[in-house]
Amino acid sequence: MQAITYEHIKTCRQSGARLGIVHTPHGSFETPIFMPVGTLATVKTMSPEDLKSMNAQIILSNTYHLWLRPGEDIVEEAGGLHKFMNWDRPILTDSGGFQVFSLSDLRKITEEGVHFRNHLSGEKLFLTPERSMEIQNALGPDIMMAFDECPPYPAEHAYMKASVERTSRWAERCLEAHSRAEDQGLFGIIQGGEYEDLRRQSAKDLVSLDFPGYAIGGLSVGEPKDVMNKVLEHTAPLLPDNKPRYLMGVGSADSLIDGAIRGIDMFDCVLPTRIARNGTIMTSEGRLVVRNASYARDFSPLDKNCSCHVCQNHSRAYIRHLIKCNETLGLRLCSYHNLYFLLELMEKVRQAIRDDRLLDFREEFFEAYGFNKPNAKNF
Amino acid sequence: MQAITYEHIKTCRQSGARLGIVHTPHGSFETPIFMPVGTLATVKTMSPEDLKSMNAQIILSNTYHLWLRPGEDIVEEAGGLHKFMNWDRPILTDSGGFQVFSLSDLRKITEEGVHFRNHLSGEKLFLTPERSMEIQNALGPDIMMAFDECPPYPAEHAYMKASVERTSRWAERCLEAHSRAEDQGLFGIIQGGEYEDLRRQSAKDLVSLDFPGYAIGGLSVGEPKDVMNKVLEHTAPLLPDNKPRYLMGVGSADSLIDGAIRGIDMFDCVLPTRIARNGTIMTSEGRLVVRNASYARDFSPLDKNCSCHVCQNHSRAYIRHLIKCNETLGLRLCSYHNLYFLLELMEKVRQAIRDDRLLDFREEFFEAYGFNKPNAKNF
Repeated sequence: MQAITYEHIKTCRQSGARLGIVHTPHGSFETPIFMPVGTLATVKTMSPEDLKSMNAQIILSNTYHLWLRPGEDIVEEAGGLHKFMNWDRPILTDSGGFQVFSLSDLRKITEEGVHFRNHLSGEKLFLTPERSMEIQNALGPDIMMAFDECPPYPAEHAYMKASVERTSRWAERCLEAHSRAEDQGLFGIIQGGEYEDLRRQSAKDLVSLDFPGYAIGGLSVGEPKDVMNKVLEHTAPLLPDNKPRYLMGVGSADSLIDGAIRGIDMFDCVLPTRIARNGTIMTSEGRLVVRNASYARDFSPLDKNCSCHVCQNHSRAYIRHLIKCNETLGLRLCSYHNLYFLLELMEKVRQAIRDDRLLDFREEFFEAYGFNKPNAKNF
Repeated sequence: MQAITYEHIKTCRQSGARLGIVHTPHGSFETPIFMPVGTLATVKTMSPEDLKSMNAQIILSNTYHLWLRPGEDIVEEAGGLHKFMNWDRPILTDSGGFQVFSLSDLRKITEEGVHFRNHLSGEKLFLTPERSMEIQNALGPDIMMAFDECPPYPAEHAYMKASVERTSRWAERCLEAHSRAEDQGLFGIIQGGEYEDLRRQSAKDLVSLDFPGYAIGGLSVGEPKDVMNKVLEHTAPLLPDNKPRYLMGVGSADSLIDGAIRGIDMFDCVLPTRIARNGTIMTSEGRLVVRNASYARDFSPLDKNCSCHVCQNHSRAYIRHLIKCNETLGLRLCSYHNLYFLLELMEKVRQAIRDDRLLDFREEFFEAYGFNKPNAKNF
């Protein structure tokens, strides 16, 4: 019995997007889905009850950050990440690979693993596929990620090829080291940058290892949007139909819809909470910077079309006031709204798949959001 | 019809403490009561729903701070402070007098009012009894406070006498300027420092003006605790039995109990939320600094005798982790617990009055809390 299974419900006849259910030891979630990111065992400014009230079905947490603080031993002693943070629904942890590459400049990659420095203390650290599995087995999420090399964008074909091959060898070592396959599912990560042949090679290598799910990594790292879409178009069909597909680090509304259309089931990103803490709001009519002076006397909700608790109870003027005064409630209200907005968007995407009209929904949403305007921001 | 009325329920036969109900245009609250402080139209880190879930019955907000940000005109345009911050229960605002004295060093007191500098911008400002009333009438709280002079501690008798007399003249001007007596009750503030004759004079002056409630100001400003208790003992009996009595700026557990015993009905203080943001917790067994390393692997609740949501769901180890990582959820959980602790303490005080055993309750509480130890901190 696999810890993680994918149940396919239907395929949108208009777009080809997949509607499904992923079953995990801590319950099931519907796909396509957006996963809020709780870097340090907390989705910034949100309580577990807040997340449940917005119907978050699975959250993500970061192996690298929890390894450093509080340390995976403390989380394990607490009874695992679910108990430590009081979240009884599914959790996914990444492998630490992305943070090693994005937070540390002094890294050295060897066949054995990656030498780098703790971004807080400067202390020397060494992360290997085996160590990443050991940490994730201690943290105890439902879904773990294989430890991969995250190459920069752009990267030469030769560099990328060596990297993809190393990531495949590391994937085997991860499977070998993973000690809790009965209650934790380990996903493989397809790399290869913008190179179709390398994505193909990576997919072939990893699919042959029979992971219970697959991620597409190395996207949303600065490449143009059409590059991302092209990579998804030739990579997703290489993955097994009966396993979930996860596009890592993507959380803009347009990319969630475009990813779903290309067969992606799972997404995560810090975007909604990060921009919220700067007073930037996602609305059905596009982006709104609520800290701007123009909202000082605007007593309407953040988004007049939103049914979230914040939009039902608080005004732009009040939220602007809180943010201008550095009151944490302001960050909390903005974070809540943005997460609700993306979770509700994915519910609408799922409904559009049920109704075989996701391409129509895309047009309507993009029109209202302003993505179709010539000067639209990639948001 | 007065906007604010006091209904006396009973007097504790053991201690003399009063049990009562204060009726306001936004509902009633039981006394003795602790009022959480929402300086800038938000009790720091708390949502209105959080406050309701801990059974906060009335909150306080600060005229000076709201005057500066967002400005009383914006709050008025929102429909008043209740609507602006989405709090439909009673609100009390102070007069701005205390902040003028505590936040600004460049102040000059004249008979007309106080010249001082904005603590944020350095801009010159002028606050008078009339202006304080105008701002509070615009903010629209249920209970307003008269604009008084807050003298330093200690102060010479001659200085204090002049100050008390000016505060009495200002109190008359406040009553004259107050334009919404039908739905806002204005409380007078008794000053006089540690001088019994001046407290008597101040009480006589203000009681003759027939305010719907009275505060005792100028305490908890650095004087020893027995000085505060003595002032309460000779001042409270000078106040009318049929009106609420409010001890300003007091929020330590021991002082709440000792104030109630001396006939005080209402208390406020930033203490519980301020120390919470530094990771300091009030528990039934005394103070606990949860950020300390000794709690890193302590999976028990903040207070094993507490039934608050935080203590039911989160461990010391998790909360310590959040605070060490500067995660705002940590501050929020600590703030919630400390406020709950004081609100529940006051419910226990009210029950002890009902049962005519507040002195016994005081002994039990002080013993468990550690106040009876020789090295007890004044907390």
